[in-house]
Amino acid sequence: MAPALELLPKSTENVPVKAIPATSNGASAAALIKFESPEKHQRVLNVFRAFIADLVQQYGDGHPGSPMGMAAIGIALYKYVMKYSPKNCDYFNRDRFVLSNGHACLWQYLFMHLVGVKSMTLEQLKSYHSAEIGSLCPGHPEIENEGIEVTTGPLGQGLGSAVGLAMATKNLAATYNTPGHEVVDNMTWCMVGDACLQEGVGLEAMSLAGHWRLNNLCIIFDNNSVTCDGSADVANTEDINTKMRAAGFNVLDVLNGDSDVVGIVNALVAARSSDKPTFINIRTTIGVGSTMAGTADAHGAALGVGEVANIKKSFGLDPNEHFHIPQDVYDFFSDIPSRGEALEAAWQAAVVRYREEHPVVAAEFALRVAGKMPEDWTKCIPSKEDLPTGSAASRKSAGALTNALGQTVKSFLVGTADLTPSCNVAFKDKVDFQSPDLRTTCGQTGAYNGRYIHYGIREHAMCAISNGLAAFNKGTFIPITSTYLMFHLYAAAAIRMGALQGLQQIHIATHDSIGVGENGPTHQPIAVPALYRAMPNILFIRPCDAEEVAGAYIAAIRATETPSVLALSRQSLTQYPRFSSREGVQRGAYVFAPAQDNNNSSSSSSKDDGEFDVTLISVGSEMVFAMQARDILYEQHGIRARVVSFPCTRLFEQQTREYKHSVLRPSAGKAAVVIEAYPSTGWERYADASVSVNRFGKSLPAKELYEHFGFEPGVIAGKVKGLVEEVRAVGIASLRGDFREFNGGLSVGLGH
Amino acid sequence: MAPALELLPKSTENVPVKAIPATSNGASAAALIKFESPEKHQRVLNVFRAFIADLVQQYGDGHPGSPMGMAAIGIALYKYVMKYSPKNCDYFNRDRFVLSNGHACLWQYLFMHLVGVKSMTLEQLKSYHSAEIGSLCPGHPEIENEGIEVTTGPLGQGLGSAVGLAMATKNLAATYNTPGHEVVDNMTWCMVGDACLQEGVGLEAMSLAGHWRLNNLCIIFDNNSVTCDGSADVANTEDINTKMRAAGFNVLDVLNGDSDVVGIVNALVAARSSDKPTFINIRTTIGVGSTMAGTADAHGAALGVGEVANIKKSFGLDPNEHFHIPQDVYDFFSDIPSRGEALEAAWQAAVVRYREEHPVVAAEFALRVAGKMPEDWTKCIPSKEDLPTGSAASRKSAGALTNALGQTVKSFLVGTADLTPSCNVAFKDKVDFQSPDLRTTCGQTGAYNGRYIHYGIREHAMCAISNGLAAFNKGTFIPITSTYLMFHLYAAAAIRMGALQGLQQIHIATHDSIGVGENGPTHQPIAVPALYRAMPNILFIRPCDAEEVAGAYIAAIRATETPSVLALSRQSLTQYPRFSSREGVQRGAYVFAPAQDNNNSSSSSSKDDGEFDVTLISVGSEMVFAMQARDILYEQHGIRARVVSFPCTRLFEQQTREYKHSVLRPSAGKAAVVIEAYPSTGWERYADASVSVNRFGKSLPAKELYEHFGFEPGVIAGKVKGLVEEVRAVGIASLRGDFREFNGGLSVGLGH
Repeated sequence: MAPALELLPKSTENVPVKAIPATSNGASAAALIKFESPEKHQRVLNVFRAFIADLVQQYGDGHPGSPMGMAAIGIALYKYVMKYSPKNCDYFNRDRFVLSNGHACLWQYLFMHLVGVKSMTLEQLKSYHSAEIGSLCPGHPEIENEGIEVTTGPLGQGLGSAVGLAMATKNLAATYNTPGHEVVDNMTWCMVGDACLQEGVGLEAMSLAGHWRLNNLCIIFDNNSVTCDGSADVANTEDINTKMRAAGFNVLDVLNGDSDVVGIVNALVAARSSDKPTFINIRTTIGVGSTMAGTADAHGAALGVGEVANIKKSFGLDPNEHFHIPQDVYDFFSDIPSRGEALEAAWQAAVVRYREEHPVVAAEFALRVAGKMPEDWTKCIPSKEDLPTGSAASRKSAGALTNALGQTVKSFLVGTADLTPSCNVAFKDKVDFQSPDLRTTCGQTGAYNGRYIHYGIREHAMCAISNGLAAFNKGTFIPITSTYLMFHLYAAAAIRMGALQGLQQIHIATHDSIGVGENGPTHQPIAVPALYRAMPNILFIRPCDAEEVAGAYIAAIRATETPSVLALSRQSLTQYPRFSSREGVQRGAYVFAPAQDNNNSSSSSSKDDGEFDVTLISVGSEMVFAMQARDILYEQHGIRARVVSFPCTRLFEQQTREYKHSVLRPSAGKAAVVIEAYPSTGWERYADASVSVNRFGKSLPAKELYEHFGFEPGVIAGKVKGLVEEVRAVGIASLRGDFREFNGGLSVGLGH
Repeated sequence: MAPALELLPKSTENVPVKAIPATSNGASAAALIKFESPEKHQRVLNVFRAFIADLVQQYGDGHPGSPMGMAAIGIALYKYVMKYSPKNCDYFNRDRFVLSNGHACLWQYLFMHLVGVKSMTLEQLKSYHSAEIGSLCPGHPEIENEGIEVTTGPLGQGLGSAVGLAMATKNLAATYNTPGHEVVDNMTWCMVGDACLQEGVGLEAMSLAGHWRLNNLCIIFDNNSVTCDGSADVANTEDINTKMRAAGFNVLDVLNGDSDVVGIVNALVAARSSDKPTFINIRTTIGVGSTMAGTADAHGAALGVGEVANIKKSFGLDPNEHFHIPQDVYDFFSDIPSRGEALEAAWQAAVVRYREEHPVVAAEFALRVAGKMPEDWTKCIPSKEDLPTGSAASRKSAGALTNALGQTVKSFLVGTADLTPSCNVAFKDKVDFQSPDLRTTCGQTGAYNGRYIHYGIREHAMCAISNGLAAFNKGTFIPITSTYLMFHLYAAAAIRMGALQGLQQIHIATHDSIGVGENGPTHQPIAVPALYRAMPNILFIRPCDAEEVAGAYIAAIRATETPSVLALSRQSLTQYPRFSSREGVQRGAYVFAPAQDNNNSSSSSSKDDGEFDVTLISVGSEMVFAMQARDILYEQHGIRARVVSFPCTRLFEQQTREYKHSVLRPSAGKAAVVIEAYPSTGWERYADASVSVNRFGKSLPAKELYEHFGFEPGVIAGKVKGLVEEVRAVGIASLRGDFREFNGGLSVGLGH
């Protein structure tokens, strides 16, 4: 597992290395790269670094040190190694580049300018950190902007996404490439700093990259040995190279990353032909050229006017010239646009040849490139009539749909954080996404065209990787992840990045609510829904039966710019085929059962236009309590309760005022009570009172646990009756400012 | 960094090893442990494993495989190595044991029974997973129960806590031990499975344990090579021993963990004298003795009636006897209680000798053992009169208090996830918690008695470790953590574990709200407060100025069973010495400024008993908008607005109905508008409308960003005026069911 250290020759002269393939057909003939002179490299480095210092100084804030330290790495990547086309940053087979140390974004912005990305003008560069809406130079790279593959900033997330981007290539290549027709063969380059290698999400992702032998992934470590608190060894003294080798990486060193462009190129090109993912440990100097070089002072603040002048002097530049890029520096990069156009043209020609030889599969490939699902996905969702009507856990109902979609639609990459038996996402005849060389103890095998992913017990990396899969080319993949809802808290920072970037994916969150039972309070996801309901651009959906599960899946698939979390029960749920509605789910909430009237039994499905005494709002696995309480209220107390199913607050908020009023009927002067085994916070918008769980759970079987927290139809009916009587006596206005928590509010202190 | 593999002799006979010290004075003279015979060990193993199979079978669910596989490890720990006293599980200098693979809790429960923990009766054991409130055998270990150091279950968390427990010992020992008086010298043993070593939080924590050279920590890896999805190599093929060595661990192997009790003891005892933390890789067989041994089938379900009978037969036990522990097995452990009492007595004698020789420091030590703060902590919080009145960021205001408390109160262990310059938690003359042998590039040094902790860029481990520090002995330490509020999402699962366990700690969360500015949407913690406000047993406090910061700190220190998150601004805030109140903070919300009347200018501080037209609720850094809008409303529109400051919803919910009504005055028939730069969700309980931020942020300077989202006093005043006029025209009832979001609701899709 631990091969000897391969130190590359540290050279500043031209050395023979494998050339960048001029075409994308996979033939990577060895050749000589024609390097510019060391003096020319130094000239570009000087101008680049001075420009960065100027930019940060102009604004008076920002991150100058890393962009200056990484300048030589940038020349190696942008001038010599990366396959990309500045005229069309989105061409399909481009190399993906991820700046996981996103605070160093000026580095990327400036290189994009130098190589000719049209939108990245000098004026745009100067808008860094400025007060302009729509600036292309925000404080961290943002996916909306030309040439940015994924939004980064929260440390470690970019690294996770890079693993996903590399997987996407592997999967497409294994699915579509044929001998002589390599229509997908791009590399993923990921720049990281110390932080990404300390963050758990990064560590998890790297373990997986090594396990999967993603040899199309290269992690470039800007090893400047400095973090905010001082030298990195204040908090980290591990042997990173050994650790990366133990995780299955090919590890290369570059000892002078400040100026050894050729050495860096040498290592990067070697990564292209590795049989493992590559980790290049490049020693650089943060803020090189300034007197603060190599210290934390160069990290996160402007260097100072005098210091910027000194830097320019030491570089032989005019200290009075600001934001100056001499023509010879532009000339240095002037070959890039045409080279990029040639790369793209070669790829397009390859696709034409591919189509001629493989017309059927090429049509499918074209659909994937267009980011479109095959039309027949809708057939994977059975009609209401075809759904089983016996009690079923919603994790099983969802599993049936995942199974059908997984078998049918190649866009779906279905994964689990080691909960295959619990989350029910494995599909028939699935092939695991694995290196074909993997031999496991239990005999499981796989291949790169497999679409079932064992992420191990790594929820955070699962979701960060999933962002990368979704970002490869929007729509080409719809990743499905799965774990218990509770452990979506481990992954929250990555799920949020998916929402922020508008990346469609479906997070299957089983073992929802206190119905998970015996595993106890550590596994009962109290407070987790509050997070996802408040988070912008995400659909948190809690369906109450198989029909609503179908509705939830439809909503999730239609939300092409939005991730979804489907909260599903461990325990069996009563099915309500006469009441539940997939169309209702699309609107977030709907009238589930109208109030009974004297002419209509408790099984009424008449219209919701009559008199009523109270509205019961319920969600997911707690629907049964609302429906049973509705019967008890009517039969024992003559109280007419209508029931509203409310699987998704976000979708409901998108509806018209008229629709919302038709569901909640607030002007009728009747109270509404929400019944959900989560804290009541957020429901005050729709209800006057709650039957909720406002403290941590307990280790008990689900039935006893529900009873313990007051989820018992008779008890609920009694509370509701009291409220109805109060409203009758003193009017609905008495409830204003007095939200009632029938189970007690959220408390401080343990109060067990 | 990578020493040669030290393979211990794999022996089943008595071997010379270092003995367990009979006293706690630190003298660990080498001696021979008197082992029972291999046959006796096998007998105990058989009975133990059969009992586990019975228990899980009785309930029909649970985790039998790991407890069976780990039986020999348990004998080694509970019979031979661990320093503990079953008659007093809480004696101060006991070894701490953490079962990080908490689903294997039956293993711990059964050993506790065998060694004589009184509350752990046979009946209690049989209550595992049953329907009994107050069972001592919940589905995962819970800190409330005798003999459980920390609650575990969410994987990796226990490992993080174990690092904290080991740090606590190191810090106390370095602070209080003197030559010949080692009053604190316990070990921390942490049992882990595959999952804890895959989870990011575990990986982060181990990096730190190695960096800090916590040689009093021993991680025991139950390497059964099986996870839920099959063999562990389905998702993990890294070389864990090499990885642990690279992280600074002493790595030992035990090849036959199923029965080699002596080999395991040998390794455990070696851990006591290591100069590094120790990682013992013990190969075991999950479900050993059953036909499913070594497979995932043995992990998380009952084995089956026939299988349980077969197991007993293969062990030479009667298949018809259930839950049977023969007397000879009890006898095997019968020396433990008296040994434990001797250990405790020796420690108490040592403390007496210590007190005689060092009366002053011993008094302080006694206070720490009692878990009490020195009385003079209150002097660290300046009175209102002594607070500076100039504009100040609340991170700076809090920093001043942290500084005073950090200098004065030894209970405070103050840490940061690499944000010393930003979070302002470093205190004067701080000493870093570091191995005294550490030599850093930047020249920073430290010692184990240091109380400033550089966690590196590892937010999740920071908070998991912090749980361990707080759990060492409640009150002995009050850990302070710090990072941006956004990155409290990385740490959410650990912060939740602190709340669940009732562990006091203070999470300093700076760069709150959109006021963080240029760093952009990745760093603007939209939705994060919704999580912490909904989470039970945590105080999420957003103070608006230095006086409220003082109130927040007082609330956090008084909450001895509750963690707090203090959300603090990056940007400067106007101070309101005439309005703000630390006492008000204790009540969660309070009347900040009453409505102006004709006899009183806008600087009114008269009582809140007059007429008013509207209530403005505001929080933290947005208070300035409410106060300025109040002036504009009165001066330009003649509208009388009272302002309520609402730093903590949880504390407010604890107040009486009368107090709540006096603050919100809901029966006055006037509208309330909340002004906060977060989603409005949750505020519907107190307000009818909101000025809020219901989508992700932007990269802009703070001022422009606030304006972009409609936080501009004139704009707000205009919206409020419209609402007041509507209420005047059609009455307050018109607002029911129509919560108004002046900035638009939370949407689906990006909608940039």
